[in-house]
Amino acid sequence: MTGSRRAVVLLSGGLDSVTAAAIAKEEGFELYALTFNYGQRHTWEIAAAKKLAASLHTADHKIVSLDLTAFGGSALTGSTPVPKQRTSAEMTEDIPVTYVPARNTIFLSVALGWAEVLGAADIFIGVNAIDYSGYPDCRPEFIRAFETMANLATKAGVQNGIRTSIHTPLISMTKAEIIRRGTALGVDYSLTHSCYDPSPLGESCGQCDACLLRLKGFAEAGMQDPIVYIRPVSGPVSD
Amino acid sequence: MTGSRRAVVLLSGGLDSVTAAAIAKEEGFELYALTFNYGQRHTWEIAAAKKLAASLHTADHKIVSLDLTAFGGSALTGSTPVPKQRTSAEMTEDIPVTYVPARNTIFLSVALGWAEVLGAADIFIGVNAIDYSGYPDCRPEFIRAFETMANLATKAGVQNGIRTSIHTPLISMTKAEIIRRGTALGVDYSLTHSCYDPSPLGESCGQCDACLLRLKGFAEAGMQDPIVYIRPVSGPVSD
Repeated sequence: MTGSRRAVVLLSGGLDSVTAAAIAKEEGFELYALTFNYGQRHTWEIAAAKKLAASLHTADHKIVSLDLTAFGGSALTGSTPVPKQRTSAEMTEDIPVTYVPARNTIFLSVALGWAEVLGAADIFIGVNAIDYSGYPDCRPEFIRAFETMANLATKAGVQNGIRTSIHTPLISMTKAEIIRRGTALGVDYSLTHSCYDPSPLGESCGQCDACLLRLKGFAEAGMQDPIVYIRPVSGPVSD
Repeated sequence: MTGSRRAVVLLSGGLDSVTAAAIAKEEGFELYALTFNYGQRHTWEIAAAKKLAASLHTADHKIVSLDLTAFGGSALTGSTPVPKQRTSAEMTEDIPVTYVPARNTIFLSVALGWAEVLGAADIFIGVNAIDYSGYPDCRPEFIRAFETMANLATKAGVQNGIRTSIHTPLISMTKAEIIRRGTALGVDYSLTHSCYDPSPLGESCGQCDACLLRLKGFAEAGMQDPIVYIRPVSGPVSD
């Protein structure tokens, strides 16, 4: 082990999680990246996560398979259509069909197990309570309750007094702020993948919630999104 | 859906979880059994779980693969030897090497996701704070913290006001009490598997912690353990 403290960072392949990981790195942590292959519609985000882990010089990167499709219940793992061209108001009015039941709870639990094995007391997750206000497991009160539970769950916490912290550096940032912060830290957003419904070649659709939020974020940050879209993008969506 | 309330029951193939499931059934729940294939040394417990789910007439039984061996850190998933012939005092003095980091947290999280899809507000887990006092994630304070977190994690809890309950009917029972209760409910313990280190034919070793606790439980209940051991068993271990 080096002198650095170790942190487990949840890395999805999207722009939020890589920014959270870059912040962890800047804070001096040695990064142990964790990506899930959970039966999402596309595997482009797994490929993106691998490139991003390499670009961050992580100490280790594990890809854990966990088939959540068996349960159904989400447009990201099932046969429900991905909604397109929704306004910001429509996106935030309800819990979206792209919500995967208990996803962050499951991901953080597995991260907790790996952290215990590594002797790491820090877990980073790129949740955001602004753009994803419809997801219950992106809210600060959920994160704090998970942390309390985690400190009662592990041998490290109970026997060795190691207090696990769940870090959510993006939780109060807008998408534009996230993009500006990541850019300042040298994140290469051309390696990221956000689209819920990409083409067979991995081009982003430009119309699903993830694409629309991303495009709006880059526009508000005054920057060009470096990834490839299926058709020319006309500009940010209106509020 | 029938008139019964649905419950997700964690079913490992061992005698505790099937007894918890039988109690859920007696309480009128329709059972949705969930078993994990997490890279444990043997797959005999998966085979046992299948037979037990059939014997309980579950509405559904899902076996979810999740490879925890990638992380190491436990005698149940790694290369650390399984301890043999330990006394009860040795078993309880420390957190055992057979502890899998964050296992119950991970299992309950996945159960929570399935419960949300099913519209189920009840999850049963056969944890026990008496015989397994060394496992932090078998203690009542952990279960309560998980329940609090769960009710902040899900769409069902946040949007629809469904309060998830984690049921731990065995938490204060001795092994003998568990066996007597299950027997009264008609559980067929000949279908269960507990051994951490079975023979290639699936016979139990009779010397690991799981076998010793089980044999002691049957002896204290004044019953014969119906499963097959590699060698004749001499009797219960002393305290």
